[in-house]
Amino acid sequence: AEVSVAVLTVSDTVASGAGPDRSGPRAVSVINSSSERLGGARVVATTVVPDEVTQIQDVLRRWSDIDKMDLILTLGGTGFTPRDVTPEATKEVIEKETPGLLHVMMQESLKVTPFAMLSRSAAGIRGSSLIINMPGNPNAVAECVEALLPALKHALKQIKGDKREKHPRHV
Amino acid sequence: AEVSVAVLTVSDTVASGAGPDRSGPRAVSVINSSSERLGGARVVATTVVPDEVTQIQDVLRRWSDIDKMDLILTLGGTGFTPRDVTPEATKEVIEKETPGLLHVMMQESLKVTPFAMLSRSAAGIRGSSLIINMPGNPNAVAECVEALLPALKHALKQIKGDKREKHPRHV
Amino acid sequence: AEVSVAVLTVSDTVASGAGPDRSGPRAVSVINSSSERLGGARVVATTVVPDEVTQIQDVLRRWSDIDKMDLILTLGGTGFTPRDVTPEATKEVIEKETPGLLHVMMQESLKVTPFAMLSRSAAGIRGSSLIINMPGNPNAVAECVEALLPALKHALKQIKGDKREKHPRHV
Ligand code: NA
Repeated sequence: AEVSVAVLTVSDTVASGAGPDRSGPRAVSVINSSSERLGGARVVATTVVPDEVTQIQDVLRRWSDIDKMDLILTLGGTGFTPRDVTPEATKEVIEKETPGLLHVMMQESLKVTPFAMLSRSAAGIRGSSLIINMPGNPNAVAECVEALLPALKHALKQIKGDKREKHPRHV
Repeated sequence: AEVSVAVLTVSDTVASGAGPDRSGPRAVSVINSSSERLGGARVVATTVVPDEVTQIQDVLRRWSDIDKMDLILTLGGTGFTPRDVTPEATKEVIEKETPGLLHVMMQESLKVTPFAMLSRSAAGIRGSSLIINMPGNPNAVAECVEALLPALKHALKQIKGDKREKHPRHV
Repeated sequence: AEVSVAVLTVSDTVASGAGPDRSGPRAVSVINSSSERLGGARVVATTVVPDEVTQIQDVLRRWSDIDKMDLILTLGGTGFTPRDVTPEATKEVIEKETPGLLHVMMQESLKVTPFAMLSRSAAGIRGSSLIINMPGNPNAVAECVEALLPALKHALKQIKGDKREKHPRHV
């Protein structure tokens, strides 16, 4: 794949086998159908972890530092319940925040439902990987990817250091 | 009360007796008139402190850790003057940030006045309490609560760990 | 000048002499043409540094702590490439964040181009200086200043401690 994508489902329910992973397969399908617009993206890894900070971080670090994934999406664990810790886990492993991505996902999600305000998603860059938290709801995943599509390909090329990808309007 | 609310007015002027507290009573009135939509909310504590980090934090910690308040609103101290330190005090005591609430308050306040951009409000979860900074202006308090109302009841139930309150669209 | 402004261009290309500084002069022109609306603003210092954290921070600290600039604009270094470190440099020197300014710049920039989501700008207060990151693109600088103009004069007076500048709607 020209753009390697990894999808991490964060869910106690799924990890324990008590329920099916509905958001992971949906994210894979969304990425695959947007492959062209993302510069040739393909999901090359998926896994599931429970809502535990250290397990989330272990996967994020491995996928970034060792597997050099271009894009890492996490699904779930972004809400207000005591077990929701995906943003806290993510903020500790990212080196640079990307608040504009969060702004756009929030802005577009709010047009669909006011419950979008309950997302506490974080996003940022670690090494050459872009890590983005998304809510676990399958529809929310599709909406969030859609919101980012107009600039995500450029984002991924910029991270790899391609100066030519510096858009003329935003050097 | 099914949902216990505490209101902290942060103001040198009010704390010193040099002026009346106009935002505190307004917040109480706004919460009481929204009680149903908040799942049976009632203001069970109010107090006033000067614009001092330690005094603000002492109240926030007590209301969260000891009194187990469900919702804590702070009023004032969110601007750009040297004495405005409510967000800094708050950020140190919250355990999880809730940026979507800030996004919605900002987005809606900007529709009323461009001066809304001067709010530096923070918001987040400590234990089982949701802490939200609001500007001290009485009208701003009403607008901010109004902006959050569509999802605030769900937020408060999620914090208490009610998995059923995970909205189908945002697990 | 009643309101002293300093403009820092952050660019490896410009600092090395490999290309002209197009955003710096544009920012000076934008500030000068908005001088009245900013309470008598004038650009009293400009300089260029490469995309290096310590060099960016040295200038920001000097302009804030020693030269007591009212407003410091940085241009460039806010994107996703490995050399873009202006927000990281800035976040370490500001004492108070001003997220509402970022919200407004992002909201307005997104109306012009979806690539605005790639800005990672930070903004905040250090001492009596307001420091705001802006993208390096000359048009983006103009758009960002325009977005802030309705409240920027009030912001600068509040930082100086002028309580009268507390807008009636946002105490
Ligand atoms: Na917005």
